[in-house]
Amino acid sequence: MLNKDHPRYQSLVYREKIVEAHKNGILADSGMIAHGRGETFDYLIGEKTTDNSHNTIDVSACYFLTSKHPVLSVNGNTTALVAEDIARLSKLLDIPVEINLYYRTSERVANIEKVYMDLGVDNLLGTDEDDFIDTPDLNGPRSPVSIEGIKKADLVFIPLEDGDRAEKLAQNGKNIISVDLNPLSRTAQTSTVTIVDNIVRVLPELINSIEKHVDMPRSQLEDKINGFNNKDNLDRAINDIITRF
Amino acid sequence: MLNKDHPRYQSLVYREKIVEAHKNGILADSGMIAHGRGETFDYLIGEKTTDNSHNTIDVSACYFLTSKHPVLSVNGNTTALVAEDIARLSKLLDIPVEINLYYRTSERVANIEKVYMDLGVDNLLGTDEDDFIDTPDLNGPRSPVSIEGIKKADLVFIPLEDGDRAEKLAQNGKNIISVDLNPLSRTAQTSTVTIVDNIVRVLPELINSIEKHVDMPRSQLEDKINGFNNKDNLDRAINDIITRF
Repeated sequence: MLNKDHPRYQSLVYREKIVEAHKNGILADSGMIAHGRGETFDYLIGEKTTDNSHNTIDVSACYFLTSKHPVLSVNGNTTALVAEDIARLSKLLDIPVEINLYYRTSERVANIEKVYMDLGVDNLLGTDEDDFIDTPDLNGPRSPVSIEGIKKADLVFIPLEDGDRAEKLAQNGKNIISVDLNPLSRTAQTSTVTIVDNIVRVLPELINSIEKHVDMPRSQLEDKINGFNNKDNLDRAINDIITRF
Repeated sequence: MLNKDHPRYQSLVYREKIVEAHKNGILADSGMIAHGRGETFDYLIGEKTTDNSHNTIDVSACYFLTSKHPVLSVNGNTTALVAEDIARLSKLLDIPVEINLYYRTSERVANIEKVYMDLGVDNLLGTDEDDFIDTPDLNGPRSPVSIEGIKKADLVFIPLEDGDRAEKLAQNGKNIISVDLNPLSRTAQTSTVTIVDNIVRVLPELINSIEKHVDMPRSQLEDKINGFNNKDNLDRAINDIITRF
């Protein structure tokens, strides 16, 4: 098995999770390649949560606590890596999880659905039994969105998302929190808040931060949101990478 | 099928080749993830061959033309992406191709062997019929090396190779030419010549360069080799990435 002394042991653990999810029909082929792209960016940022990322996670917590209808959009990679944390977050805030796949097949949806059912997620949208909306502006090249989920949402959490979808959500006036290791990506550039960090480190931190902010007055949460500028955040993230070379 | 107007169409073509090779038992799961890591680095260098890379390819051509026993070490990713060019290079220089896999299985070796046999490569080593040497310093965690191939070689061409193997080849006094998009990797840092570029662009350029240098006096080829410093090359490659941000 894996050698715990390997300098990048944690990275190898998550790589195994990805391979396992691919075998189990949760992840498309392209999802494995996408994981590799993420590994490189994580390597470039030093495989740790920066101060800037910590701040961005706190701002995200404020968005979750001040939005009316947040929804957690999940795909194969998110499910492979952090399904347990997604389930915790859904329960903590009582908000839906929506399965939204780039390469949607009934089989993959069913496999992912089972993961969240087994984790006790009741509020699960985007399954094949869901009521979907069929508007070209929100659907584009990938799966349609749920009427009770993304269509209704004012805040959409899209970890590991594609740029096309992010742009369409933004055009539809949604606030978007994305988790994207590439600060130059279209998703990163389009989002309201871009957490430039590895999803496996972000989710536990985000849950902690929400618990820390939950009793704070709404005005303070809004001050924190208003003091945030995503362009500055991305500039800092790029700078963090450059200064590591 | 793929849209030719996509800004990163070429990258998607090669991604499809990788997925196809995985389906055909040529590529291990980890090879798909490794391809994704490469995509990110290629994106960072701008998906083009830099002036510095052109020069490094020319120096590599000089090494090929002045070495006694060059060998082309190939794995699943190299085979998936550039088997035709490897076959051309093997015939042009009359040098062996050695199959050398990190996750060696008889099935994968047979599948890769078939690719090169179909391309008319006669001098194929590292198959299950080969005579292997079993010395711990050269074998390490991965497949053993061929007596007629890497064991005997003075120059080993290792595209898309792992750091452990590169370090062992260097310790055994081999000259190494690697193709590695990550200028910070152990493979890159250990090699005699590191071509920081995408293998799919390197191979056709390398063949051109060899044809251009083939009639040059040996002293001129050696001058070019002696004027090259891999540390400077890697510094320039890193600088090329930084200045793109």
